[in-house]
Amino acid sequence: MTHQIAVIPGDGIGREVTPAAVEVLESLEIDFEFVEADAGDAVQAETGEALPQETYDLAASADATLFGAAGDTAADVILPLRTAVDSFVNIRPAKAYPGIDAVRPETDLVFLRENTEGVYAGHEDRLTQDVSTLTRVVTESASERLAEFACEYVDGDDHDGFSIVHKANVMRETDGLFRDTVKSVADEHGVETEEVLMDAFATRVCLDPEQFDVVVCPNLAGDVLSDLAAGLVGGLGLLPSANVGPDRALFEPVHGTAPDIAGQGIANPAATIISAAMLLKYLGYDEASAAVHDAVEATLENGPRTPDLGGDATTADVTAAIIDRL
Amino acid sequence: MTHQIAVIPGDGIGREVTPAAVEVLESLEIDFEFVEADAGDAVQAETGEALPQETYDLAASADATLFGAAGDTAADVILPLRTAVDSFVNIRPAKAYPGIDAVRPETDLVFLRENTEGVYAGHEDRLTQDVSTLTRVVTESASERLAEFACEYVDGDDHDGFSIVHKANVMRETDGLFRDTVKSVADEHGVETEEVLMDAFATRVCLDPEQFDVVVCPNLAGDVLSDLAAGLVGGLGLLPSANVGPDRALFEPVHGTAPDIAGQGIANPAATIISAAMLLKYLGYDEASAAVHDAVEATLENGPRTPDLGGDATTADVTAAIIDRL
Ligand SMILES: CC(C)[C@H](C(=O)O)[C@@H](O)C(=O)O
Ligand SMILES: CC(C)[C@H](C(=O)O)[C@@H](O)C(=O)O
Repeated sequence: MTHQIAVIPGDGIGREVTPAAVEVLESLEIDFEFVEADAGDAVQAETGEALPQETYDLAASADATLFGAAGDTAADVILPLRTAVDSFVNIRPAKAYPGIDAVRPETDLVFLRENTEGVYAGHEDRLTQDVSTLTRVVTESASERLAEFACEYVDGDDHDGFSIVHKANVMRETDGLFRDTVKSVADEHGVETEEVLMDAFATRVCLDPEQFDVVVCPNLAGDVLSDLAAGLVGGLGLLPSANVGPDRALFEPVHGTAPDIAGQGIANPAATIISAAMLLKYLGYDEASAAVHDAVEATLENGPRTPDLGGDATTADVTAAIIDRL
Repeated sequence: MTHQIAVIPGDGIGREVTPAAVEVLESLEIDFEFVEADAGDAVQAETGEALPQETYDLAASADATLFGAAGDTAADVILPLRTAVDSFVNIRPAKAYPGIDAVRPETDLVFLRENTEGVYAGHEDRLTQDVSTLTRVVTESASERLAEFACEYVDGDDHDGFSIVHKANVMRETDGLFRDTVKSVADEHGVETEEVLMDAFATRVCLDPEQFDVVVCPNLAGDVLSDLAAGLVGGLGLLPSANVGPDRALFEPVHGTAPDIAGQGIANPAATIISAAMLLKYLGYDEASAAVHDAVEATLENGPRTPDLGGDATTADVTAAIIDRL
């Protein structure tokens, strides 16, 4: 069976790290068909559209999508792409790697971020010259779907349970609905949960990240807290992510376009290659996924390393070393 | 001139650290009249009301209020109390102290958090069985008032400018209005600003807190990011805060009721005493304020220390040592 993979490099180093990840996937004995498409600042400058309809349609029909990064147009690209794959959960592992400088090397977290609503539902109005409003939306159905996924995830990946992170002491109705729904689904599945207020989580995760494991949270909380965890493991550079929907999914590194080093061939491809490993797992290739993970970890630990990690290797060197280790 | 100070110890260690701070204020040659009032879980259990009307009225008429902590009723107590003093800005310094374990000892930040609106404006609805909404409110007038305060603050306290932290790439109208308004007030005053997305801030402040100084942000962003900074300096235990309004203000430690150690007389009074130092500054006693700050710092550095900092001193010992050093 051929898997069609949409490849959307985007801007900046997205154009370097995405091909690197494709190279790794191509080195495996799996039948992929890669179809490339444009998105981001460059295509916006050319055509006036950051996300051309054919790119959207491709992501909406491919088995999986690999996305690099977009510049100023990031929100105009990534938010509709999440919709294109009907993604209801954003999986964001944040793990420190041996040998990589980290504020909290013991960090090993996975965020399961609601990916459709909250403030991202985005109904905004300027009611008067003075007053603007945004309608934050939380539904029982989206919370349920996320919770079902979270329960399967902790079972399949051998976790003890998950933390529900929210701000229901202030957003009583909306985050209250989120918390109660997620908790009752977990209870039905016999999955253990604890509740943590999002502000308290921010303090506690810095003091002792090992007290947390899988974190289930609303959209904006997931955005900010996973970036916080990124800070604890040494930056966005190594973090992969998966936007999963019922029938397809989109994989992207958490980092941006890194305009300061774009075009030099020295971007670190690790986060995108780990994202490709998540893609492999999503398609059912658990062994290949584990092999890619291991090859990336071995390369992070033993080199070659790109300049962001203190080395002087190129993107191509690192990619070749990872493929060698497969 | 007599200054009337409302004293609201609340629950748990609030009942121990608030009297300690009052003792420090009493040791100064300033004419204070302290009036105590109830709030929190205990009074709720007794009377059904976490914030009795007379406590609200007292805070709304006193020159300043010193608040300890409240338990499960925290939101029912602190949010109306902020309204009682018409507080439009929450000042939250997050600073590591010499000799105190901190993830990032170089952290020295001040958050100026919008204190009236955002998601805290809190218009929530359960539209259907499935759908709940919250109307987030951002006004030009509140953003302006905060920005005017921030400009005075950076001038008076000798800072180079401030960072505007927001999520206007997603909340375009509301956080866009916040960002544009704050920036244009700063421009008028010739105060330098930079813009940082709140998720990027979370990463960057972990990696290198020294790149930031004064941070101006919406209400929930301030809640979460100041608690993140608390994590970087070693926990909520030492952080003071001031809720400032046009005519009065409320001062409180950022920590909670610490039920595990409440009643033992070993709570660390430092955060509440530093909050009292902020109260002194607010009332114009700059020298006394600096003296209390210095005495607390000297005591943190040289002891005696409470058990949370590895010592075996009591609240009373630490308070006496601080008064001795004045
Ligand atoms: C670019 C932006 C809209 C996006 C988000 O807020 O989700 C980004 O921060 C992310 O986390 O992928
Ligand atoms: C208790 C809660 C309502 C409050 C807030 O969210 O503002 C607290 O977290 C704080 O920061 O003072």
